[in-house]
Amino acid sequence: MEKIIRDNIFQQAIKWIYEASSMIREKMNDPLHIETKSNPNDLVTEIDQATEKFFVNKIRSTYPNHFILGEEGFGDSLDNLTGTVWIIDPIDGTTNFVHQKSNFAISIGIYYNGVGEIGLIYDVKRDVLYHAKKGEGAYKNKVKLTPLKRDLTLEKSIIGMNHFWLCHNRLVDEKVMEKFVRTVRGTRSYGSAALEFAYIAEGILDAYLTLNLAPWDIAAGIVIVNEVGGVTTTIDGESVHMLKQSPILTCNPAIQEIIIKNYITKGRKVT
Amino acid sequence: MEKIIRDNIFQQAIKWIYEASSMIREKMNDPLHIETKSNPNDLVTEIDQATEKFFVNKIRSTYPNHFILGEEGFGDSLDNLTGTVWIIDPIDGTTNFVHQKSNFAISIGIYYNGVGEIGLIYDVKRDVLYHAKKGEGAYKNKVKLTPLKRDLTLEKSIIGMNHFWLCHNRLVDEKVMEKFVRTVRGTRSYGSAALEFAYIAEGILDAYLTLNLAPWDIAAGIVIVNEVGGVTTTIDGESVHMLKQSPILTCNPAIQEIIIKNYITKGRKVT
Repeated sequence: MEKIIRDNIFQQAIKWIYEASSMIREKMNDPLHIETKSNPNDLVTEIDQATEKFFVNKIRSTYPNHFILGEEGFGDSLDNLTGTVWIIDPIDGTTNFVHQKSNFAISIGIYYNGVGEIGLIYDVKRDVLYHAKKGEGAYKNKVKLTPLKRDLTLEKSIIGMNHFWLCHNRLVDEKVMEKFVRTVRGTRSYGSAALEFAYIAEGILDAYLTLNLAPWDIAAGIVIVNEVGGVTTTIDGESVHMLKQSPILTCNPAIQEIIIKNYITKGRKVT
Repeated sequence: MEKIIRDNIFQQAIKWIYEASSMIREKMNDPLHIETKSNPNDLVTEIDQATEKFFVNKIRSTYPNHFILGEEGFGDSLDNLTGTVWIIDPIDGTTNFVHQKSNFAISIGIYYNGVGEIGLIYDVKRDVLYHAKKGEGAYKNKVKLTPLKRDLTLEKSIIGMNHFWLCHNRLVDEKVMEKFVRTVRGTRSYGSAALEFAYIAEGILDAYLTLNLAPWDIAAGIVIVNEVGGVTTTIDGESVHMLKQSPILTCNPAIQEIIIKNYITKGRKVT
């Protein structure tokens, strides 16, 4: 993607994020109409939908030849990533949004021919924008994030993971994950994949492990994490496929191999 | 405790908290000297110790007849709670303090003849003071916190708990806790007991379950949670003993009985 074009898209996307977040802040304390999707705890509100529609309308009128992948389904049905594709989660962490009115984010990744060019994660409540352009570093508002430290051991790592890793699951033996939890320095769970990616980039978490994520949960995060030297793969260490759901590991590279070899692989179930 | 005396102590304690937090902010980005206590993940820094010493010196010179229980051991050895007792955790969430430079708090509970009179939890990074005086409501900075909503079901609750609840442990069968995790709307883990108590008071979490806490982890939180109608007991529903460590449940009262009866009691191991 040409620099001048990318810079224009980047500025435009940030402007729309701030506009969308003003609307979210205005409406978020009104009574919410909450629906459930795949299961009773997979929530969606009219604000998720209105926010995605806002972005879709803006993108379609400003960049008619761009494509859109959005969580709420107002974008396109894509079978490849040719051209410029906006991958959007209008509200990542909807349960937090509904129950906490904080700890949620707008997440936008912009890819060109399959390569992540721009990553934007906006923590609406705290007014913190994590942003990155490929090759130009990652920022938290105006502050450039420092490269992840390389002298890290698993024993001194803080890990983001939800509690289902320790419940019977189809991917990894929970008893192996119990050993993992007992080895690391601490485990945390914040309930927003996009923010947990941002925390990896900040060095607040050293790894984030997730059982199943969709492209819109990770598209922005991958670009941002990449810019500070972090790595994102499937939990088996394979490249992430940006058109399907996968179990994901994003982390400081110093602990990637030990997590995959000594824990995930040892406990991996045949699927 | 007389109101005029309590108000004086309350104002004084807040003044000292702000002074202590200035020192913490000044020093927290310097290289930290980190030691371990009971296990390799039980961290303490010279800032924890200096902060407790600061409070102990201030209290001893201003209120020579008060007693002090402090995490770092610079206070008194008490076998009862007669008189005025300051129960202090200078930095609650030391692992977060060391690794994240955020998500930690100064926690001070002030008890008179065993009754919690004042609760103060200060989120140093975010500059948020949760405060309460018994019978006068709880506040987040200047905003009065609203009473916890009563129409809450477990299925719509967000629970704070660490991952060890799902590992083999001496208290509760982890398979029963797996059912619990699968029943509630979501589980979170933030790594600071004091802040998790504050989140209960805010309604951001609906219950917080913990395997083992000391008096200084909970003394302030109990007072604050109480003021919005929340309840704190051992995980068996018994009164908290403020001079020993216990597994603790603090929650919205609407879900207390179902958590204890249908989960804790069913999975409880004989000790």
